[in-house]
Order: sequence, then structure tokens, then C-alpha cells
Amino acid sequence: MKQITSAQNPFIKQLILLQDKAKARRETGTFLIEGQRETELARKGGYEIETVLFVPEMIAEAQVKTIAGRQTELIEISREVYQKLAYRDTTEGMIAVAKTKSLKLEDLQLGDNPLVMVAEATEKPGNIGALLRTADAANLDAVIIANPKSDLYNPNIVRSSVGCLFTNNIATGSTNEVIAFLKSKNINIYCATLQDSAQYHTQDYTAPTALVVGTEATGLSKEWREASTKNIIIPMQGAIDSMNVSVAAAILIFEAKRQRGFK
Amino acid sequence: MKQITSAQNPFIKQLILLQDKAKARRETGTFLIEGQRETELARKGGYEIETVLFVPEMIAEAQVKTIAGRQTELIEISREVYQKLAYRDTTEGMIAVAKTKSLKLEDLQLGDNPLVMVAEATEKPGNIGALLRTADAANLDAVIIANPKSDLYNPNIVRSSVGCLFTNNIATGSTNEVIAFLKSKNINIYCATLQDSAQYHTQDYTAPTALVVGTEATGLSKEWREASTKNIIIPMQGAIDSMNVSVAAAILIFEAKRQRGFK
Repeated sequence: MKQITSAQNPFIKQLILLQDKAKARRETGTFLIEGQRETELARKGGYEIETVLFVPEMIAEAQVKTIAGRQTELIEISREVYQKLAYRDTTEGMIAVAKTKSLKLEDLQLGDNPLVMVAEATEKPGNIGALLRTADAANLDAVIIANPKSDLYNPNIVRSSVGCLFTNNIATGSTNEVIAFLKSKNINIYCATLQDSAQYHTQDYTAPTALVVGTEATGLSKEWREASTKNIIIPMQGAIDSMNVSVAAAILIFEAKRQRGFK
Repeated sequence: MKQITSAQNPFIKQLILLQDKAKARRETGTFLIEGQRETELARKGGYEIETVLFVPEMIAEAQVKTIAGRQTELIEISREVYQKLAYRDTTEGMIAVAKTKSLKLEDLQLGDNPLVMVAEATEKPGNIGALLRTADAANLDAVIIANPKSDLYNPNIVRSSVGCLFTNNIATGSTNEVIAFLKSKNINIYCATLQDSAQYHTQDYTAPTALVVGTEATGLSKEWREASTKNIIIPMQGAIDSMNVSVAAAILIFEAKRQRGFK
């Protein structure tokens, strides 16, 4: 088996670029996954694991094979190399190189009566991670990121989603593409925006529904407001009335789930 | 007016300790607030502002006086000193030294039909900040932190609450103190925990209600489960079923608000 003990090794340097640069991820079509559970979830979610680097003192080869699959190339690395690659403070001892997916709208598989979350231009990776966790718990048909600000394989998104990046049906596209997609599927569009809005809990989300949130700073773009079936608002009664975007999204998602009887 | 241009100044060194050490905040009974809006909210929320340090090139003295009140001592500082003190990347040019509050349970003023959020031992400051933002938007009667893991004047909490640390009624206490307080006020206790639980949306939160959440890792302590009026659970239907604690709290809070007709 191949062994790498120097962080100066050209392959390791290439992998460090995958952590740091969206460009490197785009050009190679690969990204890094840390952790055993995350790697297992990625494989179950249809991600191809190309290579696993592991520290033999931290995790046994047999276990790595069980997690990554027998086809995957294994490379032994030293603790020093591992610490150079690992983004989190973890002692799991394995890092996987996986192929990215194209995340195309046309590849989304929706159920008969879909409930979909759309987030436009969400900026903070931690908010996308939290959104994906909520979407997993609600078993949404899909999460769509419109006009994404970063690629979804950004290590902060991978990490903060605690594996939910791999369990959700996810797509990205421009705002116009996403609107066209939703309309082609006859999905009602509920935009979380102030103008001409109804209180969110007065609307019926039992038909095919997309819940759409924008950024905390600037809200949703004009295109969404024009395409909206109905604008909705969470009534706010505080002094500041500033809710985290992933929190607002969760309130809308679970009101829809409640109306649907959690079926 | 006093002027400080060196980060080595003993007073500045003392203020840096306030950012870094809970012990320094406890011993002096003071903490730092960054930003104009935050300082204004703190003053409106009954916090005493002792001193404001400001950079004359960044904010005018008259404006500082309007924000901080005429009684407050003002100190001019250089940009270098400001950058040393500022925790955030901000260009607002002012930092306030404020007195902490005792945050005692017995000082809480509750309405006739209170809706209260209790979080036990929440670890991440960002989660407490997000919780305080939600609590402000919902205009809760109070937020109570049971067995707090850090003091609430931790700069990460101050920052992530975007001022909602000052707009909410907040108290802290040991779990047993908080339970005794809630019982003395005849407030129903709904604990978010798996054991013997009902789905959250099947319960009635229109009477005096405390919603109680624990940590993501270990949940609520035994004392809460024993004091519980009813345990509640958010139905989860995903592959991972791990929701951020501030997100789960928001779903519960807004279901209660919905049942109360947002009154």
C-alpha cells in the first residue's frame, strides 16, 4: 500500500488546495470528506469515493475498507500529514477524496406532493449547514440553492451539515432556472418577504410547495417576488426582529410539516 | 478629554482581559459592547454604560454622547487601540464598557400568561445568540439559561445576539432553582426530550408555558424530566435527525406563538 509521511508530498499539497480553493474543487471535480460517519453517508448518498487516506495508529485498515468500499484506493498517512489535511479537530484518522456531483435541477427526484426548500444566495456556510440539517430531519423532497455564493463542497458547509449534505436531495441553479423548474412542476412558490405578505401560518402548504428564503441582509430578489404564489412573513413582535435565516426557514418548514400531519 | 494611543496602556490591557476572560468580567462586574446600535440597545435595556472609547476619525463625539448618554465618561483612542480591542471586524469606531446585570430569577417580570424559553447548559455561544434573536422576535416573557456553561457576557454571545442580549428578559440559575421558580409561578413545563414524549404540535401551549431544551449531545438532565408537565418531541423523519438546538427551540416557540394567535 502507498504511504505518505511528508506534508510536502505533491499529492497532499493538491488535497490541501481542495480544502482551500473552490477553483481546485471545480477543476478536479473532487472534494474532501472528514470522518467515518460522513464518509459512510456520502457513499450511501451515491458519492463516489476515489481515495481514502488514513492513519493506521488511529483506524484499522479493515474498518476503512468497510466504510469506503472495496474499490477505493487506500493510502497510509502519518499523523503529521493528517493534521495538515484535517479541517476539524478530530481523532477519527481518515479523510476521503470524493467526486462532486453536478447538482442539476433536472436530476432532482421529487415525490407526488413535494415540499421543497429554496435558499437564495445564502452567504454563511454555517447557515447552509443548519438548513441541510433541518431539511434532513423534515425529510424534504429537495433543497435548492439559487444563485449560490459558494460551491456546496466548501469544507465549512461539509462540516456544519454533519453529513446532511449527503442525505438530502440538493440542486443548485440560477434564480431564473429555479423559478422555471418549480413552475414546470406546478409547485406553489411561497416567498418569505415583507411586501404584500400574509402571515405564514394562514397559508395552506398541503399542495406542492416551495418555501423560499433570501439573505438576512437583502432578502429575496425581484424575480422571486414576481414569481411568487403568495408572499409570507413570520410575524415579529420584538425590538430587533432579526432572525437567523436558517431559523426562519425551519419555522416555515415545520409549519408545512405540521399542516401535512408529518406524513 | 482623556486620550489613549498605546495598546500597552494598563487600562486598555484590562479591557482586553474583559474580552478574553470570564473571570475578569466577574471580578470587575463589567463587559465590553461593540457597535453603536448594540450600545444604544444596552442603554435602553437598562444597562449602565460606564465608559465609551471612540476613534474621533470614525465617529463624532456628539454622536457618541447621543448614543451613550451625557453621564458616560468618554475616552478618545487611536485606530490601533481600537483594532486591538474590537472583537468583530467593524468600522463603527466605538466600544463601550458596561456593567453586567445579576440576571436573577427573582428579578424577572413576567406577564399574565407567560411564554418562557429555558435552555439548559447550551454550549456554543452562537446557539445562545441565535436563541436570543428568536426570543426577541417572538417577544417572549423571558429566556432562562439553566446551568450556564459560560457567562452571558462572553463576547461571542454579545456579538452573535446582535443586540438581543439587551432586549430580552434574561435570567440564569441552577436547574433546580429554575424548576422551583417555574413551579412557584404555576408555569407548565414542556421538556424537549425523547422519553415518554408527545409530538410537540399535539400539546396546548396557550396556558402559562415554559419550553425547555437541552444540549445537542446529552439532552436534558433527569431533574427536568422529573419536573416535566409533558415531554415533547419534534417528529424527525430523516437519515440523521440532528437539528441545531436553536433551530429546534425556534420551532417550539413559534408553534406556541401560532396557537396563541401571535398575541
